[in-house]
Amino acid sequence: MKLILLSGGSGKRLWPLSNDARSKQFLKVLENDKGEMVSMVQRVWGQLQSAGLSESAYVATGRTQVEMLQAQLGAEVPLIIEPERRDTFPAIALAATYLYSMESARLNEIITILPVDPFVEDRFFYAVKELETVLETSGADLGLIGVRPTYPSTKYGYIVPLSDEPSTLYQRVSHFKEKPTEYQAEELIRQHALWNCGVFAFKLDYMIDLLVEKGLPIQYEALRKQYGQLPKISFDYEVVEKAEHVVVVPYEGDWKDLGTWNTLTEEMGKTIIGNGVICGESKNTHLINELDIPVAVLGLSNVVVAASPDGILVTDKSVSPKVKDWIPFQQTPMYEEKHWGWSRVLDCQRYEDGHGVLTKRIGLAAGKNLAYLMHTNREEVWTVVKGEGEFVMNGNYMRVKPGNVLHIPVKSMHGLKALTDLECIVVQTGAWAAEDEVVEIYSGWDDVMRHCLKM
Amino acid sequence: MKLILLSGGSGKRLWPLSNDARSKQFLKVLENDKGEMVSMVQRVWGQLQSAGLSESAYVATGRTQVEMLQAQLGAEVPLIIEPERRDTFPAIALAATYLYSMESARLNEIITILPVDPFVEDRFFYAVKELETVLETSGADLGLIGVRPTYPSTKYGYIVPLSDEPSTLYQRVSHFKEKPTEYQAEELIRQHALWNCGVFAFKLDYMIDLLVEKGLPIQYEALRKQYGQLPKISFDYEVVEKAEHVVVVPYEGDWKDLGTWNTLTEEMGKTIIGNGVICGESKNTHLINELDIPVAVLGLSNVVVAASPDGILVTDKSVSPKVKDWIPFQQTPMYEEKHWGWSRVLDCQRYEDGHGVLTKRIGLAAGKNLAYLMHTNREEVWTVVKGEGEFVMNGNYMRVKPGNVLHIPVKSMHGLKALTDLECIVVQTGAWAAEDEVVEIYSGWDDVMRHCLKM
Repeated sequence: MKLILLSGGSGKRLWPLSNDARSKQFLKVLENDKGEMVSMVQRVWGQLQSAGLSESAYVATGRTQVEMLQAQLGAEVPLIIEPERRDTFPAIALAATYLYSMESARLNEIITILPVDPFVEDRFFYAVKELETVLETSGADLGLIGVRPTYPSTKYGYIVPLSDEPSTLYQRVSHFKEKPTEYQAEELIRQHALWNCGVFAFKLDYMIDLLVEKGLPIQYEALRKQYGQLPKISFDYEVVEKAEHVVVVPYEGDWKDLGTWNTLTEEMGKTIIGNGVICGESKNTHLINELDIPVAVLGLSNVVVAASPDGILVTDKSVSPKVKDWIPFQQTPMYEEKHWGWSRVLDCQRYEDGHGVLTKRIGLAAGKNLAYLMHTNREEVWTVVKGEGEFVMNGNYMRVKPGNVLHIPVKSMHGLKALTDLECIVVQTGAWAAEDEVVEIYSGWDDVMRHCLKM
Repeated sequence: MKLILLSGGSGKRLWPLSNDARSKQFLKVLENDKGEMVSMVQRVWGQLQSAGLSESAYVATGRTQVEMLQAQLGAEVPLIIEPERRDTFPAIALAATYLYSMESARLNEIITILPVDPFVEDRFFYAVKELETVLETSGADLGLIGVRPTYPSTKYGYIVPLSDEPSTLYQRVSHFKEKPTEYQAEELIRQHALWNCGVFAFKLDYMIDLLVEKGLPIQYEALRKQYGQLPKISFDYEVVEKAEHVVVVPYEGDWKDLGTWNTLTEEMGKTIIGNGVICGESKNTHLINELDIPVAVLGLSNVVVAASPDGILVTDKSVSPKVKDWIPFQQTPMYEEKHWGWSRVLDCQRYEDGHGVLTKRIGLAAGKNLAYLMHTNREEVWTVVKGEGEFVMNGNYMRVKPGNVLHIPVKSMHGLKALTDLECIVVQTGAWAAEDEVVEIYSGWDDVMRHCLKM
């Protein structure tokens, strides 16, 4: 079995902690067995490792999440990168062609699609494993996992089984019902319907045949090229609801969508993450503070306070699902994790004459390097404040340490490698970001060194 | 009549907007007639100007508030600077000797002491003016202003009049009662007692005689020198309660102590100051945001959210008077107004090896200059990002503009004058602040220019 984890979403409902570079699945708000704070994607990856499934897992994602996934799961995590975000059908189709043409997967290999951030118990992954046997023995086209409903939710999709024998290992699916009324939901539960949790298993040839049938390429590179023309449609609508022979494996256990502040804080390991206090009569109140400055919450119950370099949210928990609708702020992410470390915007000014100043603190992990590149319309001043490294500008090599000031004029090629953990204060001045172009020359440090020798 | 405004207080109850460099009286949260945001001290100074009293007013304050007072009231505001903070008796004694020996005030001059931040109506200052006539005609030692109570408060001090004829211009004082019980307060109100609002008027010789009697110097410089030995005691206890002949002028009108978030926000001109939104069912909720990042408050009523570079407060209004007790944070002020402009800390890091990095953005107003000085243990990198100016380092003069990078090694003398409004990003590195010493060489720019010519 090969697993494809779909990592999408911009996570505006968890503003200000989530942003375009850091979707909700990357927020480190859960506590693992060792008392460390981990993100949802790290929790799921750990569960896959425990279940012996991580070795055969890939993450399908967009370009904006690559740095974050590598930072959180390790640089070796196998990624299938969508050229742009379209929806789950194109994403799954691309992943299938990748396995078929790039990884030479067998046509009868079972492919299982999983969301990257279900909050579930470990035994959920035993159900995932069972999908293999179930697909083989049932001869079904598609295998799903259904969660036993705990209340007549009107927010989820329901999988309605054909028989009403809830005790078998799997059941044949009759049909689906999206977001029913509460009355309908009660009736569905009586029919032993299950919540659809977004897991799909199929044999590779099922998907490949489907692509052929639709006149789409089955080679990865070819499909990638015309990815922008694929319809923006979900796998549920395009495939699952049209499939003839679908089975479902029931899972009985916790299954939660931690996509809003009220559901997320229920699973938080602590009431306070970061620098701050909650005082006075405060019940069921949570504080997540990623800023350096302290936060004090006094005499408030059922409240979430979340502070990040992007902004500050203070909300009653009951209305927190509406955050997405109410937040009018559109902005560049202020904190980003990178494959080489992290970058944090300290200050951002735009002056009347149109020029701008961006002040950042960046941290490079020992052994990592920034790409060798140049800015067409910005100059930079870097002050090394911690650690040691190698700096190259226009082919000239120098060792750097705290106190060194690196003045990088417009259109100068430059790169930096950290020998030990290294930090710089970076002041960028010149044209505002939109008018600046970054030209990358080399990404690997070996190439930069060779370039120096040639100069 | 000469007026002395006492400007004290650290204003911890209005954390995080108030700090040691910016007491509550300096917060610009009130709206004036022209729709501009002004501070309490600016409001009072404007009222003094309208009443024709500002010309004879002095502000008695500590060294830490000098820059702020000059920034808000103008560089010409006459200041009497206490060598250290002690309490109101030493402060008033020092001010009296200043008027006596430095300003050659007449011995029969009426001196009126006022708090710097009463929130009152304009006619309050007519009562202040009347104190002159009242002291002359009554022959009393001390004249006070008493506010007609609006409810039996247990927080204030009461002035109990001798007679029960509330209609006269002034009344002789029988005695005082500090913080009575509610039952006592009701009884006091029946006796036409008034709230003491901290205004004291006396003839200069009354205070001078008192100093002589106590064996204290009556010359300003002499008293200043032994200021540290004066008792930390209030003027109320040391003088008012022992005085034999005291009169009170009643004032009928609004009189408020805007010293806590719930009282302050009642008088705020707007519900939102700064970048942010209040959405959903939110009644009587106020947001004051001094940060660049946005704040969203959703579905919360009777709440104050205050964000500044020092920290973030989220509090139910009813418990906001307790802010002072609950805030455990001790920190260096992150934003300071200076006589030359302002300074804002962007980032502050202390590394394991004991060295530190402080990143600031500073703004100099056109025509102003930083003192010419050197740091014994810190080096600095300044990147000019806005405006034009003159920079001098070790006697060398240069004109600077955006893009210039000024690298200032340890022990280098340096100064900067703004020709137009000027901004710099400053990165200070080296020993942590406590181990660094700043040696000021010249404060005036003329001296710096002469020094350049000599080099």
